[in-house]
Amino acid sequence: MSALALGHMNPDTDSIIAAIAAADLYSKRGKDVTPAAQGKPTPETEFVLNKFGLTAPQVIDDVAGKDIYLVDFSDLAQAPKGLAEANVLGIVDHHKLGDVTTSSPLEAWIWPVGCTGTVLKNMYDFYGVEIPKAIAGGMLCAILSDTVMFKSPTCTDADKKAVEALAKIAGVDDVMALGMEMFKVKSAVDGASMKDLVFRDYKDFNMNGNKVGIGQLEVVDLSILDKVKAGLQEEIAKVKAEGRHSVFLLLTDIMKEGSEMLMVSDDPSVVEKAFGVKTDGAPVWLPGVMSRKKQVVPNFEKAFK
Amino acid sequence: MSALALGHMNPDTDSIIAAIAAADLYSKRGKDVTPAAQGKPTPETEFVLNKFGLTAPQVIDDVAGKDIYLVDFSDLAQAPKGLAEANVLGIVDHHKLGDVTTSSPLEAWIWPVGCTGTVLKNMYDFYGVEIPKAIAGGMLCAILSDTVMFKSPTCTDADKKAVEALAKIAGVDDVMALGMEMFKVKSAVDGASMKDLVFRDYKDFNMNGNKVGIGQLEVVDLSILDKVKAGLQEEIAKVKAEGRHSVFLLLTDIMKEGSEMLMVSDDPSVVEKAFGVKTDGAPVWLPGVMSRKKQVVPNFEKAFK
Repeated sequence: MSALALGHMNPDTDSIIAAIAAADLYSKRGKDVTPAAQGKPTPETEFVLNKFGLTAPQVIDDVAGKDIYLVDFSDLAQAPKGLAEANVLGIVDHHKLGDVTTSSPLEAWIWPVGCTGTVLKNMYDFYGVEIPKAIAGGMLCAILSDTVMFKSPTCTDADKKAVEALAKIAGVDDVMALGMEMFKVKSAVDGASMKDLVFRDYKDFNMNGNKVGIGQLEVVDLSILDKVKAGLQEEIAKVKAEGRHSVFLLLTDIMKEGSEMLMVSDDPSVVEKAFGVKTDGAPVWLPGVMSRKKQVVPNFEKAFK
Repeated sequence: MSALALGHMNPDTDSIIAAIAAADLYSKRGKDVTPAAQGKPTPETEFVLNKFGLTAPQVIDDVAGKDIYLVDFSDLAQAPKGLAEANVLGIVDHHKLGDVTTSSPLEAWIWPVGCTGTVLKNMYDFYGVEIPKAIAGGMLCAILSDTVMFKSPTCTDADKKAVEALAKIAGVDDVMALGMEMFKVKSAVDGASMKDLVFRDYKDFNMNGNKVGIGQLEVVDLSILDKVKAGLQEEIAKVKAEGRHSVFLLLTDIMKEGSEMLMVSDDPSVVEKAFGVKTDGAPVWLPGVMSRKKQVVPNFEKAFK
């Protein structure tokens, strides 16, 4: 039975591409590994897959009894059904260390960089395995996406170095032009349901016993979202009503470099504790806030303590 | 304030040497890191430190408010006081993934190899940092100790390769002779109290809600322990009485390649579930069993489910 390389719930470009790259690298190291995902690609990811001729991984929803490599997450809250009965052989990630545990030694590569793609680029080099051109293109886009074209505070020199090397392998001459093309696809909201938009890049967190959902939409200009903002607010109220303490939705303007945050919360004062901005539940503008991982989650975790 | 590189409770040679090596490597990567330990070196570790002119790390028992790199463990049960209020910046380890979590991205190098020293050797190479001669000698001994001179089932090709390279750096011509010298020191029981012997290499585990202690003494000949066996049995009964479900003590004969296991348990039937050997609490001989991590802990974890 093939082992699975598997990204988190509501897969983004990094978690899909990382599954493809990890399966490729582990296979070339003599293991039998297939990429998998917990859902279909977003429009942004579709664009990247098509651009480089890659195939979307199989969608799975239960991993009981399976051997798996986790990519781009280590939280049980982002895992599929059956993880407790799965055998986690490895983790490649760039987030905080979550609550996944194993009963046998594993191989974990977790680095404080902007993207799992950057860690994988270094793993390929470490093991002396050549990166296929198409996968290099995918990893390049994943890094541009996760680091918001190097503007996110999560971006490190290692990410920039990886993009430079991957662009050569993939034959991409103008990295930033490719990034803008990709973010324009990401910005498009036409034809998507409110639910699709809220869950496009959404994660649940356990914050001191409270279930807190945080979604993010990144656009090249916030005005793109004017016509859907009321619908998004209604939609996160529904998500909150499913038993969450709070749901926050970051509307990130990647050119202005900041986020408007919509919210529905049992206690909106956590927003003031986290960001110093008073609100009774009305949206707030958070200048400079672009990274859920580095700027939003740690602040809320402190606020919930 | 200097960050700490810190090994597990009841430090063995690997966790002391790994703290020294990690602090050296991270310092040379531009971070301010000092080695630390949760206790004094064992006679084996003393031998290794003296052999290569290394200094025992400072002993600490509270890490609240500190920046730390964990080496050789990722379990809260093996952590010092205050870990919940510490900032874990990194993990270098070769065990199963424990229940430590972080609130920020970290750097974790966890590999399924025989020794943290092997992971660190590869990290030095990855970052292009030269390994100081004395630290190379210490890492070499840590690998020989953890892999029981390559006899343990935890030993991998990566461990053997690391020893070969480290021996050259440290100027050690006969690796196996050094290993036997070290294991003879480890085998000595004269002058040590029963408590010292039980805790020389001892770890507590949470097995399905039960606190289970597992210690291990490795000797070049089991007959060395004949005169202390009754005393050890009495001592583990005291440790068990402090609120544990079971305490097991492995007396490992590294030449015969097997372990006699002493025990005090609320339910000795877990031994039969784990190893297929019936006992009412009397010691059992487990042929081929040399590794707590790979052979004993996983079997008991299944037995406790």
